[in-house]
Amino acid sequence: MANHFYSKRDLTFHLYEVLNAEQLTRLPYFQDHNRESFEMVLDAAGQIAESMLKPLLTEMDRKEPQLVDGKIRVHSGIRPIIRRFGDDGWINAPFSYEEGGQQFPATIMNAATFIFGAANYSSSVFPFLTTGAANLLRSFGSPELIETFTPNMYAGRWQGTMALTEPDAGSSLSDITTTAEATDQPGVYKIRGQKIYISAGDHDACENIVHLMLAKIKSGPLGAKGISLFAVPQKRPENGHLLDNDVLTAGVYHKMGYKGAPIAHLMVGSNDGCIGYLVGEPHKGLSYMFQMMNEARIGVGMNAVSIGTAAYYASLEYARERPQGRPIAEKDPSRPQVPIIRHADVKRMLLFQKAVLEGSLGLLLQCSYYADLVHAAEGDEKEKAALLLDLLTPIAKSYPSEMGCLTTSASVQILGGAGYTTDFPVEQFYREARIHPIHEGTTGIHGLDLLGRKVIMHNGKAVTLLLAEIQTDMAAAQVSPEGEALSNQLGAALVVLDKVTRHLLSLAPSDTEAFLADATLYLELFGHVVIAWQWLRQTTVARQAIANVHDDDQNFYQGKLMAARYFYEYELVKIHALSRRLISADRVTIEMQNEWF
Amino acid sequence: MANHFYSKRDLTFHLYEVLNAEQLTRLPYFQDHNRESFEMVLDAAGQIAESMLKPLLTEMDRKEPQLVDGKIRVHSGIRPIIRRFGDDGWINAPFSYEEGGQQFPATIMNAATFIFGAANYSSSVFPFLTTGAANLLRSFGSPELIETFTPNMYAGRWQGTMALTEPDAGSSLSDITTTAEATDQPGVYKIRGQKIYISAGDHDACENIVHLMLAKIKSGPLGAKGISLFAVPQKRPENGHLLDNDVLTAGVYHKMGYKGAPIAHLMVGSNDGCIGYLVGEPHKGLSYMFQMMNEARIGVGMNAVSIGTAAYYASLEYARERPQGRPIAEKDPSRPQVPIIRHADVKRMLLFQKAVLEGSLGLLLQCSYYADLVHAAEGDEKEKAALLLDLLTPIAKSYPSEMGCLTTSASVQILGGAGYTTDFPVEQFYREARIHPIHEGTTGIHGLDLLGRKVIMHNGKAVTLLLAEIQTDMAAAQVSPEGEALSNQLGAALVVLDKVTRHLLSLAPSDTEAFLADATLYLELFGHVVIAWQWLRQTTVARQAIANVHDDDQNFYQGKLMAARYFYEYELVKIHALSRRLISADRVTIEMQNEWF
Repeated sequence: MANHFYSKRDLTFHLYEVLNAEQLTRLPYFQDHNRESFEMVLDAAGQIAESMLKPLLTEMDRKEPQLVDGKIRVHSGIRPIIRRFGDDGWINAPFSYEEGGQQFPATIMNAATFIFGAANYSSSVFPFLTTGAANLLRSFGSPELIETFTPNMYAGRWQGTMALTEPDAGSSLSDITTTAEATDQPGVYKIRGQKIYISAGDHDACENIVHLMLAKIKSGPLGAKGISLFAVPQKRPENGHLLDNDVLTAGVYHKMGYKGAPIAHLMVGSNDGCIGYLVGEPHKGLSYMFQMMNEARIGVGMNAVSIGTAAYYASLEYARERPQGRPIAEKDPSRPQVPIIRHADVKRMLLFQKAVLEGSLGLLLQCSYYADLVHAAEGDEKEKAALLLDLLTPIAKSYPSEMGCLTTSASVQILGGAGYTTDFPVEQFYREARIHPIHEGTTGIHGLDLLGRKVIMHNGKAVTLLLAEIQTDMAAAQVSPEGEALSNQLGAALVVLDKVTRHLLSLAPSDTEAFLADATLYLELFGHVVIAWQWLRQTTVARQAIANVHDDDQNFYQGKLMAARYFYEYELVKIHALSRRLISADRVTIEMQNEWF
Repeated sequence: MANHFYSKRDLTFHLYEVLNAEQLTRLPYFQDHNRESFEMVLDAAGQIAESMLKPLLTEMDRKEPQLVDGKIRVHSGIRPIIRRFGDDGWINAPFSYEEGGQQFPATIMNAATFIFGAANYSSSVFPFLTTGAANLLRSFGSPELIETFTPNMYAGRWQGTMALTEPDAGSSLSDITTTAEATDQPGVYKIRGQKIYISAGDHDACENIVHLMLAKIKSGPLGAKGISLFAVPQKRPENGHLLDNDVLTAGVYHKMGYKGAPIAHLMVGSNDGCIGYLVGEPHKGLSYMFQMMNEARIGVGMNAVSIGTAAYYASLEYARERPQGRPIAEKDPSRPQVPIIRHADVKRMLLFQKAVLEGSLGLLLQCSYYADLVHAAEGDEKEKAALLLDLLTPIAKSYPSEMGCLTTSASVQILGGAGYTTDFPVEQFYREARIHPIHEGTTGIHGLDLLGRKVIMHNGKAVTLLLAEIQTDMAAAQVSPEGEALSNQLGAALVVLDKVTRHLLSLAPSDTEAFLADATLYLELFGHVVIAWQWLRQTTVARQAIANVHDDDQNFYQGKLMAARYFYEYELVKIHALSRRLISADRVTIEMQNEWF
């Protein structure tokens, strides 16, 4: 199918067959919804993606944002896109009716995010960022701040951003030096500093930009404990006017990919004229920001899957159409060439993409489901979901991000020389995918988060809960021989994971450095296990469904069963290499010295 | 060190400490040379690389070749570079004195290739292609053809190319449809067809282009057996004039990376006016071409290492200078941040690059050394070198190419957000590295070559010879405890390789499809083992040398010992995942059907 960039059938499978997303509507917050309203949203997302976002994919890559006279100019197609997201209620759709929202579950919103990102990642980040910034304001801001800023943000007239990074503070956020100085008005501060890599930090497709900015109130505590959150508009609304707020754009970054989205370098308060409004309490900025970052991390994982999925379908289409070579066993040159999808090595590269991407999509939707339970359920159910979501977030962000670089690489490889040219979109997807292991916390940071924080929190309670979930799914998988086979392999993988985890935790008290030195590898190992779990769940559903269907559905479920087998055969086995390293006593990366390189 | 893009110290180590390249001068063909003449070449290469190639690295990426009025215009800096290569004798340096060459060993020429590629890969391919094309002519062409074409090629006035690929014949070369029709002059044919992806296939930095082109003589045999080789100039030299030869440039490809090199789409003989000169005998074109392709494959592997090395040093420099975060065990925020090279995870990413790249460089120089023995030695020594070179070529091409995508990705990751911007060169290296698993035979093709041809040729004699070489080096490594430890691990890896090889060969008679389905994974496994062998050799040398040196040399050898440890701890262990898949009976990639995707 030409221009196929995602599979609605697969989304339906995840949402309603594996996850039973309709069950969310039993919760009061979501009670007005049902599968029909979910489907309306996803159909609308598909329609916007197809008609507005996808047509600009290539053009936004070729015509990068430029800084002209102090203002970043973006592609002219972005303004109508943002307004459309505002007009149609996408930006505040998850928020409550009182806030003008529609109380949509994150599960459905993130499925829409997946569709938008697959169509054109760069264009989809604008409204996504505004939602995140608005969510911080409505969660922690005063009623006055909310009233001042959010209506225009919801409408898509004002852009929201997360303004965290500074020249000397990227991964180490506690080292920010942007300062906030109290004025005589309560909650009103003078802000001074520099922010870099601010996504949508300045552009001409909105009327104003609202930065949710981290800064340190003068004379506050050192490090992370001294960070506060401020709303810092580019233009300050006062008495019905928008006044210049001394947030200057010093530059726009030119990037390898996702070029359509402007990433700004901002000078804040250089002329002593920048006002910021404290959001929530002083010194709690980092904890507030983590709310948005955790949501954003699921979003990044989802967009990694989006880009990978668009590349997967592009390579699948090519593999079906491109004749080259003959089957291994029939090399007669007088016979016509066959489409390359007939070659086992090409099918391997396609199955690799399918297995990684559909496994990741399952995980991300499941995390979104947990987020909905955290938001709208109560008691044990809420607490359990919160722990599972906390534990799985570094994996749900990093596994798809790291693997997306490899799946898009497989797409390029399938197209061969053609894939390396700009005549096909896969090279763009390869470039775009590379951002995800970097932004919203590098993979290294997420490894430390998983092993150094999430695995040990509450005495390992989250891991215990996850294992119970997996074991329930392993029991459910026993209904078919292939489910049983995968279940046994997953059981063996859990033993490996447990052995490695115990070994690493045993190092923690005496040798923190060795404990965490290979946290990135631990994250990878954990990721393989979690995605294997997702494929076990998908296998159980597919095996049960396949008996009663024909034609396309039969093919669909066969594909699921094969992709699961692929994942266990080719991907899950990687834990046996990782575990060898992770239990080794060789401290080579610690002992290595700067001057020996 | 600013602008450090390769290590001369490391090259010295490989050439003279590990490989003993001076020993080549005992062979009559190389007898006029010595270490001093080798060093003069490498110093000259370094000087040209530094002064002419490297300054254009970024600019050639930003100002792509353009097709203007039927002619591809390249960066104006390329013409002086090609002329300099011609004037200084680089293009024919490996050829004999009678041919105007200098009888330089491939080992030294490829070391120079490494330096040039690390400075600016795009610019280095022009003379490299001319050398390859000239080599075909001088090896197989008539004296008249040689006299007509090669002097101008050696001088850098005429560009040489390899013109193989067609719209319907990429990996499957036997399907080319370009035709050659005999004229009344012997050896002179009319050529008609289309060629795509022709590197340096047209540009304005030379006066003429000489295509070494594959075509099928009309009424010849079907398939690969009917392919002949022709010299097809863009302009035909006749009576002291250059006449248009009806080779039209239909397009220039815009690519993800290595943009400075023009890749052309050619229409050959569209106006019935293209003359080609038969090179050698009819129908032997493919076997002739393989001579050049095998050399080119070592060259591609070398350039993959070049690009990776430049990226490695860029990321090393950044890691040493960029302060961010604090040591795991001393998180006091009042202490200054430390350079990121202090973090184990960053050292891991640096060691990964170092271990892969310096291991690959060792392998490629060793293959070059074998090529010199094939060329200039006799008897058993020659035969043995030929078999080892044949066996190792698919690995020497593919391992660095595939891994180069990952090492440049690690460079980007070390720089974080900065690495994704065009403010630093690593994003360019990441884009450039991606071509290597594609051109000169995709990785899939090399997997089939290794398993389906090289491993089984002469009843496995090449593998037997390689194992004997490795075992000799394992015995030599026993002199130190770390050598002994690595040697034991390598011995265990050889057992795994042997087990996998036997299993796959057992499938060959009854199930060719299963035998070759995972040839790419087999290639990867074999690659890990071969690079581990290279690191064992390097360890033995470093361990012996380190006792008697100080300061920089002490640091250098320490780095070697650590990188070897890294390779065995983190990379070699991957064979334990690959072998599980390779001995599995699950035929998932074969059984997968088109319609199930």
